[in-house]
Amino acid sequence: MAEPQGVGVRKRALSATKAEEIQAVEQKFRKSQPDKPCHKPRDSLFTWNSGFNNFTGFVNWAFLLLSIGGLRLLLENFIKYGIRVDPIEWLYILVNGEGSECPTLILLLYHVVPVLLCLIIEKALSAEVVPNGLGMGTHVVNILSVILVPMVLIHVKEGFSLVGASTVCTMYSILFLKMWSYVQVNMWCRMSRQKTGKSSLRRQSVSLSNLRKEQQALNQERETSEVQNASLKQYPDNLNLRDLYYFILAPTLCYELNFAKTERIRKRFVFRRAFEVLAGTQIILAVIQQWMIPSVKNSLVPFSNMDYTVATERLLKLAIPNHLAWLIFFYIMFHSWMNLIGELLQFADRDFYADWWNAENIDVFWRNWNLPVHRWAIRHLYLPMLDMGYGRSTASMVVFFISAFFHEYMVSVPLKTYKIWAFMGMMGQLPLSHVSRFVCKRYGPRFGNIVVWSSIIIGQPLCIMMYYHDYMVIHHGSTIAEYVQV
Amino acid sequence: MAEPQGVGVRKRALSATKAEEIQAVEQKFRKSQPDKPCHKPRDSLFTWNSGFNNFTGFVNWAFLLLSIGGLRLLLENFIKYGIRVDPIEWLYILVNGEGSECPTLILLLYHVVPVLLCLIIEKALSAEVVPNGLGMGTHVVNILSVILVPMVLIHVKEGFSLVGASTVCTMYSILFLKMWSYVQVNMWCRMSRQKTGKSSLRRQSVSLSNLRKEQQALNQERETSEVQNASLKQYPDNLNLRDLYYFILAPTLCYELNFAKTERIRKRFVFRRAFEVLAGTQIILAVIQQWMIPSVKNSLVPFSNMDYTVATERLLKLAIPNHLAWLIFFYIMFHSWMNLIGELLQFADRDFYADWWNAENIDVFWRNWNLPVHRWAIRHLYLPMLDMGYGRSTASMVVFFISAFFHEYMVSVPLKTYKIWAFMGMMGQLPLSHVSRFVCKRYGPRFGNIVVWSSIIIGQPLCIMMYYHDYMVIHHGSTIAEYVQV
Repeated sequence: MAEPQGVGVRKRALSATKAEEIQAVEQKFRKSQPDKPCHKPRDSLFTWNSGFNNFTGFVNWAFLLLSIGGLRLLLENFIKYGIRVDPIEWLYILVNGEGSECPTLILLLYHVVPVLLCLIIEKALSAEVVPNGLGMGTHVVNILSVILVPMVLIHVKEGFSLVGASTVCTMYSILFLKMWSYVQVNMWCRMSRQKTGKSSLRRQSVSLSNLRKEQQALNQERETSEVQNASLKQYPDNLNLRDLYYFILAPTLCYELNFAKTERIRKRFVFRRAFEVLAGTQIILAVIQQWMIPSVKNSLVPFSNMDYTVATERLLKLAIPNHLAWLIFFYIMFHSWMNLIGELLQFADRDFYADWWNAENIDVFWRNWNLPVHRWAIRHLYLPMLDMGYGRSTASMVVFFISAFFHEYMVSVPLKTYKIWAFMGMMGQLPLSHVSRFVCKRYGPRFGNIVVWSSIIIGQPLCIMMYYHDYMVIHHGSTIAEYVQV
Repeated sequence: MAEPQGVGVRKRALSATKAEEIQAVEQKFRKSQPDKPCHKPRDSLFTWNSGFNNFTGFVNWAFLLLSIGGLRLLLENFIKYGIRVDPIEWLYILVNGEGSECPTLILLLYHVVPVLLCLIIEKALSAEVVPNGLGMGTHVVNILSVILVPMVLIHVKEGFSLVGASTVCTMYSILFLKMWSYVQVNMWCRMSRQKTGKSSLRRQSVSLSNLRKEQQALNQERETSEVQNASLKQYPDNLNLRDLYYFILAPTLCYELNFAKTERIRKRFVFRRAFEVLAGTQIILAVIQQWMIPSVKNSLVPFSNMDYTVATERLLKLAIPNHLAWLIFFYIMFHSWMNLIGELLQFADRDFYADWWNAENIDVFWRNWNLPVHRWAIRHLYLPMLDMGYGRSTASMVVFFISAFFHEYMVSVPLKTYKIWAFMGMMGQLPLSHVSRFVCKRYGPRFGNIVVWSSIIIGQPLCIMMYYHDYMVIHHGSTIAEYVQV
């Protein structure tokens, strides 16, 4: 447009205008003819040149097709197997187990012992009646016992049902992480008390009556500063059963002195979350009874025979209900249940999960899907290790291995098959992480996200089949051998 | 904030700031404590209050799950039926038919007769050697014969294969619409020539040699006006075989004197579209042989027995491959094939389809998915009827009934089963239109779109099953009766 662009450009511009002019006149002439012309030069929408990119209708299409496919599978399933949903069966499994002495319930009640022991040690350490080394040693033994006792008992003692043993293992894993957090936070508080070296704080540890007075004086000081922080606890005040059990019940694994609280319990919120938990659990149980158990049973022979086509078909058949059950489980566990408990305890921090469904690589998924565990790992393992002088990669690896251990623990102990499929599954996340990062960098976040989803949808049923296969071979080996030969 | 809002507001604002201040100080105090607090009041993402709405990951999830489900169905199908794809079988059906005399090819070649007849009548009308009434009457008979000849021949004569008969019916339907357009446009031109009443134009009809001279004079006139419109044809010049066959081959149903043309044929474009047509056709044939034929066969007995559960399962099972085949058919027909022909003929208007996949009600879908037919209906049926004084709703109804007739024609004639399922299917669009409009208005365009997709996905296989059922009952009634009783 400006002069420096030269004559050539202007000439072309001129001829372009002339061509346009000719076209316009031609168009006008065409319009003036009596044949009512209706065609003009245009590209089809699927042609790249058209610049058209509104394909939102296909998103609805995908969800609709998914629903239709699901509905058909449901019908096919009912025609083939009849109705297998039976809530009574679950009640029977839960209450009776395979034995008769309810070892599950006893083991669940036993948790009071390590918790009380932990509080007593902590009180002794706070009052400095026990040397630090001895106290921390006892803590370590006590916390390790939380993991080992159910492991040994379930292995040695008969009479645990699969569901009961799973519940026990999950509960004790959570308890382990909570007690670790409790002990570590109190240790930080003690260390800070020693460091500050204030006379007033030192005196607190000498006698409890003095401590109370100090506290009251401190409170009055704060009240005069017009801010009512009377409700905020300080270190040794927190060492009581009420505070500890609030933490053990609260939907978090990270202990702190003063949890953020809500002002009131919303009754409708509680009612809705409770309904979701009940309904969701029923749906999961129905999916397992009606859909997953027949699929897993049917997959046994092809898996043993190494018939890859049939085994893949079985795997994909299992993938859908398993994934569905996992999604519902995620929702009722991390949204409904934790929000319900949080609301009842007026626990204000409901950040239990981030948007893992948009994760563009495996690492982001693992960071986002289980925030209580992620927060615990960062606060109580990763950052302390960095403080101790370890490198970032070492700290990450330790976090990863502990996570892998707990996955294996919560699967292998109830099944009593000490195979390492779950552990291997977790280890498989390392190469997968590289793959998903590469895909994300090369083809964009959408494809990274698809890799993440694929690993979730396919990885889980693969592990389930491995375990089921090994479980059946161990417990009913001879019967299967006949089928396999046929 | 301003004074008129009163003291109450200011008071509340004041207390709000005070509460915030207290909270801030409390937060600061909590942070200063040695327990490294990590919780703060937050809502979960699935809670409405959180304001979070980025669920794009679930779109990838839906497409992935759809692919996995499809893959599993494919595997299941191969395990159950083996490989049934056989291109030779199609070739056999196409070339030999069930008889041996290739009546399909003869009927396809016969189309020259009505086309030539049409051109001769048109030339005679143009030269005014035949009175208008007689000419138009002959046109109507000629054009109706295009529809009736294949109908009668296929019904009377044995030896048409299903594929051959379908091809003939489709071709003759297209020819019918094209000839209607050709005759109507030429009629408009004649009417305009009569109306203008110019002496020069009147003289044209007297002798063809005079006409040529006139034309040359006109051309010179236009050349002097600096615009080269020499290539633009005017009315009686267009009446030649070359022009008529260009229109018959062109990917449009609307005749006009001067079609918009492209400057060159892009060889790579032609190659790609041709490849798409070949590959897409093979995929459709494979889907039909491998997936649809077994499904339809299996559905026969449940449909006869009125066993609703099994019949629904069969219907949904058929819906997926049928829909897939239809989608591929749409793409290769309306994008690949029409673009290929358009490119070869340098036909510039490639507007063969609009974005029907985003249609928020049935009417928008019918307007958008087949633009050549839609444009024809508007230009040659709807607007002329409005000109003739009919109301909009009457004109719409006539368009709709003619469309329904052609749907029925293209299905019933090849199958030789004069049931009205296709016609009923089209009639069903009327209440569906109301439903989709209501849903769209009530629940938003997304749900309107879902209703449209549902009707496409479910409606078609329902009709296919009805026809297949009736076809089998008519042709193999006694054999089925035994099955049904069992």
